[in-house]
Amino acid sequence: MSNERLIYLPLGGAGEIGMNAYVYGYGAPEKERLILVDLGVTFPDMDGTPGVDLIFPDMSWLTERADRLEAVFITHAHEDHVGALAQFWGELGVPVHARAFTANIARRKMEERGHPEDAVRTASAWPEQVKAGPFTVGFLPVSHSIPESSALVIDTPDGRVVHSGDFKLDPQPVVGEPFDPALWTDVCGGGVQALVCDSTNVFSTHPGRSESEVGPEIETLVSVAEGLVCATTFASNVARVKTLAEAGQRAGRTIVLLGRAMRRMIEAAVETGVLTDFPSTVSPEEATAIPRDNLMLLVTGSQGERRAASAQLARGKYRGLELKEGDLFLFSSKTIPGNERGVIRVINQLSEKGVDVVDDSSGLYHVSGHANRPDLERLHDIARAKMVIPMHGEHRHLRAHSNLAAERGFASTLAINGTMLDLSGATPRVAGFVETGRTYLDGSVRIGALDGVVRERIRMALNGLITVSVILDEEHEPMGEPWCELKGLPETGRSRAALIDVLEEDLDQFLRRARPKTLANDDALEEELRRIARSTAQDEIGRKPEVIVTVSRVS
Amino acid sequence: MSNERLIYLPLGGAGEIGMNAYVYGYGAPEKERLILVDLGVTFPDMDGTPGVDLIFPDMSWLTERADRLEAVFITHAHEDHVGALAQFWGELGVPVHARAFTANIARRKMEERGHPEDAVRTASAWPEQVKAGPFTVGFLPVSHSIPESSALVIDTPDGRVVHSGDFKLDPQPVVGEPFDPALWTDVCGGGVQALVCDSTNVFSTHPGRSESEVGPEIETLVSVAEGLVCATTFASNVARVKTLAEAGQRAGRTIVLLGRAMRRMIEAAVETGVLTDFPSTVSPEEATAIPRDNLMLLVTGSQGERRAASAQLARGKYRGLELKEGDLFLFSSKTIPGNERGVIRVINQLSEKGVDVVDDSSGLYHVSGHANRPDLERLHDIARAKMVIPMHGEHRHLRAHSNLAAERGFASTLAINGTMLDLSGATPRVAGFVETGRTYLDGSVRIGALDGVVRERIRMALNGLITVSVILDEEHEPMGEPWCELKGLPETGRSRAALIDVLEEDLDQFLRRARPKTLANDDALEEELRRIARSTAQDEIGRKPEVIVTVSRVS
Repeated sequence: MSNERLIYLPLGGAGEIGMNAYVYGYGAPEKERLILVDLGVTFPDMDGTPGVDLIFPDMSWLTERADRLEAVFITHAHEDHVGALAQFWGELGVPVHARAFTANIARRKMEERGHPEDAVRTASAWPEQVKAGPFTVGFLPVSHSIPESSALVIDTPDGRVVHSGDFKLDPQPVVGEPFDPALWTDVCGGGVQALVCDSTNVFSTHPGRSESEVGPEIETLVSVAEGLVCATTFASNVARVKTLAEAGQRAGRTIVLLGRAMRRMIEAAVETGVLTDFPSTVSPEEATAIPRDNLMLLVTGSQGERRAASAQLARGKYRGLELKEGDLFLFSSKTIPGNERGVIRVINQLSEKGVDVVDDSSGLYHVSGHANRPDLERLHDIARAKMVIPMHGEHRHLRAHSNLAAERGFASTLAINGTMLDLSGATPRVAGFVETGRTYLDGSVRIGALDGVVRERIRMALNGLITVSVILDEEHEPMGEPWCELKGLPETGRSRAALIDVLEEDLDQFLRRARPKTLANDDALEEELRRIARSTAQDEIGRKPEVIVTVSRVS
Repeated sequence: MSNERLIYLPLGGAGEIGMNAYVYGYGAPEKERLILVDLGVTFPDMDGTPGVDLIFPDMSWLTERADRLEAVFITHAHEDHVGALAQFWGELGVPVHARAFTANIARRKMEERGHPEDAVRTASAWPEQVKAGPFTVGFLPVSHSIPESSALVIDTPDGRVVHSGDFKLDPQPVVGEPFDPALWTDVCGGGVQALVCDSTNVFSTHPGRSESEVGPEIETLVSVAEGLVCATTFASNVARVKTLAEAGQRAGRTIVLLGRAMRRMIEAAVETGVLTDFPSTVSPEEATAIPRDNLMLLVTGSQGERRAASAQLARGKYRGLELKEGDLFLFSSKTIPGNERGVIRVINQLSEKGVDVVDDSSGLYHVSGHANRPDLERLHDIARAKMVIPMHGEHRHLRAHSNLAAERGFASTLAINGTMLDLSGATPRVAGFVETGRTYLDGSVRIGALDGVVRERIRMALNGLITVSVILDEEHEPMGEPWCELKGLPETGRSRAALIDVLEEDLDQFLRRARPKTLANDDALEEELRRIARSTAQDEIGRKPEVIVTVSRVS
């Protein structure tokens, strides 16, 4: 009897929303031939990852088994699905398959890191299929919030797996293919082996709304605006950008795209034929010659990012353009949890300029790109899978989605990052656990999340820093007095004397009385100096800073 | 003709939600006798204020004029209204007036800082009034989300000012006085001089809901729960805590209060007679002897605060109690913008334990304590003030509120912190601008927001740190090699050699070749060493760290 099996192993994306990376394998245990679906990033924040540039999944499990990897498949061009591809491609070295728009974006990333662009191969939509070892993979169009999003139809010796990718069930997505229930029903036939399914919106209980619903609302809003109109959304939401541009055009406004990502995405969409009739645009320089109430700016920065066009316009001028009293600023976007402060900062800065801000609180100017609970149920019913495996969600989403599937009669299990499932049978079976985690891009270096580097930074931010320098002569006698420097600490404390003087005085007192044995021992001396510095600081300013002690011995 | 005038000067709370501090004055310019309304804090965050303990308004303008200050009035016991009182009372030294519950909380804070508790005087509700220089002030009960919230009726020689405090128009607030439109109409008579008014919920377009609406929903939820039930809300929302406790009691559950603030607030409410029939509670120790499905825990930490009871229960045991598969956790609260990450962390940790979490996304289990737009309009109409001055809001709230008032025929202006208004005439007139800002409580020390201390911490967190130590002899010759320490930086970079070795090597190279003039000049030498350290780091790890250089000269 064959002991070959079909495995599923999320390395990222199952237990968080971000850094998606899902491995499928087929073969005998430890000998499975593998494919990787998506290779994305997640974004750092000051709370937990100060100074970090990007966060990747820890890909060591896969890079150590790169000889068993057949190919990478990218479902769509969002950063959390394609952003880490070029970072790891050198260690994977296999062909990357994606549809034209996604491939266009992926190639730009590969080029930036000096990888061969032809490693990225353009796949056509279903019914075309790509062979990769024991797998045959097809890109099944599905609607989302970026062009050419696809589910993957993964045929294996143990049956067909449908990996949903990020999706919604939109009959009129404005740009790209509508969700086609007949096609999906046909592809899923009498039922598939497994549906591995997006969980993002499992807590939204109403059916999802179509992208086409926001157009008329935006058009109404823009048609009555009097000053300059500025709107922001995710640049990758090409349909929305088009809707916004058309609303501007109908109101007789000239369109200006601001922000690198905005121009890059529209360019990619035009290059790949996804976007055929985008209104003509002018450069910011040309725009300054046009009456400002005839302009509509489409800008990056829907999440309040400090360097994006929206934040720069909120602070002052950007590329010669400036917002003023009576202008309108539209957030055609939702704020991702965690980004509220940045967005609110931008709104208040715009308020200070007298700009009227319209956000999504009315629900009129934005719709989500993910399937809500009733839509998930509908897809479950179309797929009629033996098992439903929730992915793309935090623990709470995966758990709720798994419970939903189970309640409706589908075998299901909650598999977070590192959980290897055997999907070969009638129900999912845990086949093992793999060490996973996060890798940080930090400047130009990759570091592990548990290396302690970021922890040290957080400690310096929370506690401030004292450096202590002491020089000893050959007889272990202090030469001169100890020398301190402070960073991130108040200058004076309880005693009203300069903190640095109090520290140096206390450390000097200690040195004068220290036993020869202590003075002769670097570790003991450093430990004592650190203890005294912290204790003096606690006394003076009520906190214990980080301390760096440098003991120099002159010979 | 008299040149006496009535002035209003927000020192905090107008341009942010938090750290409320509003000055009123009456008299000749620069000689006005003053009162202060509220003296609150705002809370720090890792993004902008790492390591800071609390944020206060910069009170220098008032402390420099403390001889002109008559009294402080506290509208209610929320931290953003009373939290800084004890911090500044020593510099103000005047009587503090508040209603019983608020006074109870204020006295606890005064006691903690060694101030005389009798500086806080208990005021009765309207029609009692307190005389303070040219002002006569009454506490007019109004509903909010804490007991005994009051508007202040401030009678001045130039007419009556109504300072709304934080409020909602709740006919059934569960604990405390309902909003009494007849009383308010009576107090406002034919129209007051100025209404200074809460702006928090100006963007909520539906009428506010009553506190009494959540009780039945919570009761239904708790009645069908099977495991242990745990609920969190703001501890100061005594009405909600009571509603939760009663729902537990009706479901046959024994109530346990967890978290210092929760016990403290209920204690204050009972001591002051605000709360008369709170269900009996047991201690966590006693609770461990009760079957867990007969328990209901009421816990602190509705905002996901790391040290609060909710977060500790989400991570593991707390005071012998533990949540398990099938338990219910209710957030009877909204997440304040900026706290989303902490709350989501708690929810996911609870999900990992198999706990079912119910949050406020349904709108059933929480109502706001602030007046929505239609309620603001109603109060405007009751007050019939010559002018409406929006307070308690970010810039966007103040602006929208001011526009709302103006559209409805009331004179209004947008006065942010530091804007002194003359309220004596028919319309508000800007009488000047005062320097305001923020003061940080940092450990035990007060520092200015612009002192640069926090900026240094943020830089260390974003960039990491290198220390460089160099020792020179009397002839300015380097003794030994330079010595580096790293904090918050990767160990190796581009060259794969230890970063510290590469740094020390490059710095040593420089020292060997440095001109005597440079070696003899501390500033020049430090600057060069810093530049080289940063440049080497940029080359190796792609970032420029903060650098502390210590040059020691041995004689």
